[in-house]
Amino acid sequence: MLSAEEEKLIEKFCRINGIEADRELVFRALCHSSFTNELAQNGERTLESNERMEFLGDAVLELSLAKTLYNEYYLTEGEMSKIRAMVGSEKVLSSVAKTMRIGDFIFLGKGERQTGGAERDSILADAFEAVLAAIFLTGGLGVSVEFVQSKLSDYIERAVEGELILDYKTSLQELTQARFGSRPLYETLLDEGPPQEKWFKVGVFLDGSLMGEGEGRTKKAAEQLAAKHALEILKKSGAKK
Amino acid sequence: MLSAEEEKLIEKFCRINGIEADRELVFRALCHSSFTNELAQNGERTLESNERMEFLGDAVLELSLAKTLYNEYYLTEGEMSKIRAMVGSEKVLSSVAKTMRIGDFIFLGKGERQTGGAERDSILADAFEAVLAAIFLTGGLGVSVEFVQSKLSDYIERAVEGELILDYKTSLQELTQARFGSRPLYETLLDEGPPQEKWFKVGVFLDGSLMGEGEGRTKKAAEQLAAKHALEILKKSGAKK
Repeated sequence: MLSAEEEKLIEKFCRINGIEADRELVFRALCHSSFTNELAQNGERTLESNERMEFLGDAVLELSLAKTLYNEYYLTEGEMSKIRAMVGSEKVLSSVAKTMRIGDFIFLGKGERQTGGAERDSILADAFEAVLAAIFLTGGLGVSVEFVQSKLSDYIERAVEGELILDYKTSLQELTQARFGSRPLYETLLDEGPPQEKWFKVGVFLDGSLMGEGEGRTKKAAEQLAAKHALEILKKSGAKK
Repeated sequence: MLSAEEEKLIEKFCRINGIEADRELVFRALCHSSFTNELAQNGERTLESNERMEFLGDAVLELSLAKTLYNEYYLTEGEMSKIRAMVGSEKVLSSVAKTMRIGDFIFLGKGERQTGGAERDSILADAFEAVLAAIFLTGGLGVSVEFVQSKLSDYIERAVEGELILDYKTSLQELTQARFGSRPLYETLLDEGPPQEKWFKVGVFLDGSLMGEGEGRTKKAAEQLAAKHALEILKKSGAKK
């Protein structure tokens, strides 16, 4: 059961986003585990967090995007995979979550809120997927596809036209500054071929250690790929800590 | 347009598997790219292969499994992910495809058929997903979930009960024998801890080179993980060739 205050907040969140879904489910979609854990530890309330819904919402998102790409564009399997990965990325989903003001409505534990959880991309993207699950559980797939299209069709268009290039260099710099207090440096390891067929290989270094390499037709593209690889490695090592 | 013979085959395939779906879509789901490429090269017919449908069917499968796990079992997000990965694996899907006799009905190019394509796990698993897409495009998500449950509920039950352990060691041996003509060897790299808290680290070697490592509470579990890692590396390197 929601309190009167929670009810009012959820009502407002649904109204500003045009969401038709069961209010209890929307509430759960906005309950981060830090919030439900805190309540349980204080012996106040036992609530389920949005983690299971996020799992379901992720699959709803994947199918909504697959269906849209399959029906509305004539793309190969490989192109559809690539576009879906771009559009379904944490970066894109957290941007959408911000336009939906999920950060203003999400329920977080005190510690998580104090350390900026309401602006954290992973928390926002996960909550977006959980909200999508609430829509799916209430109204089924058709409504979910419509919702996904209303929020993501601009990104899909841009991805299909090849404009949606995720900026891995910026992401890497943000991460290394936050985690190690230092900036990544890029070094061209290879620069060969005639002007029309240039090929570059770039390494990205952190405090003198090679973190990742990337290749491409332009130095910029090679740097982005190197940053992407470094991010993958850092995220893996972060997960183990 | 299907020929009378194709029509008859598709009719039979649908009948023995209790599939209600548009016949043209089911036909496309069973058209491997080796077949459509061959027809195009011979200037006979231009058909689309099942690749785009497989992309869609994969997403239908993921959501069907997610919905089933979400609604019918009380599992954590991590448990649901693990079970879905097991049940949606190529090994499981190709087994199901075999019970559906997809290998008897699939359309392959001559070369692919001669080299055993009709028994190849990847081809069969992909065709299963494409058939699921045909069901989805004809009847929607509800029918698709029912179909997935009818084919996979035993595997889901077994996975939930922890019995569905994929045998990576056998898969690795099959792959290395086919590709390099040699068998993987396992060596215990670490064996420590008191009897109640044993911890093993195992390496798997191919022709003297370390291919992967795994750790676990039993030697068997560590070997399976080592084989899994080796498989991932071999599959990646195979994709690049």
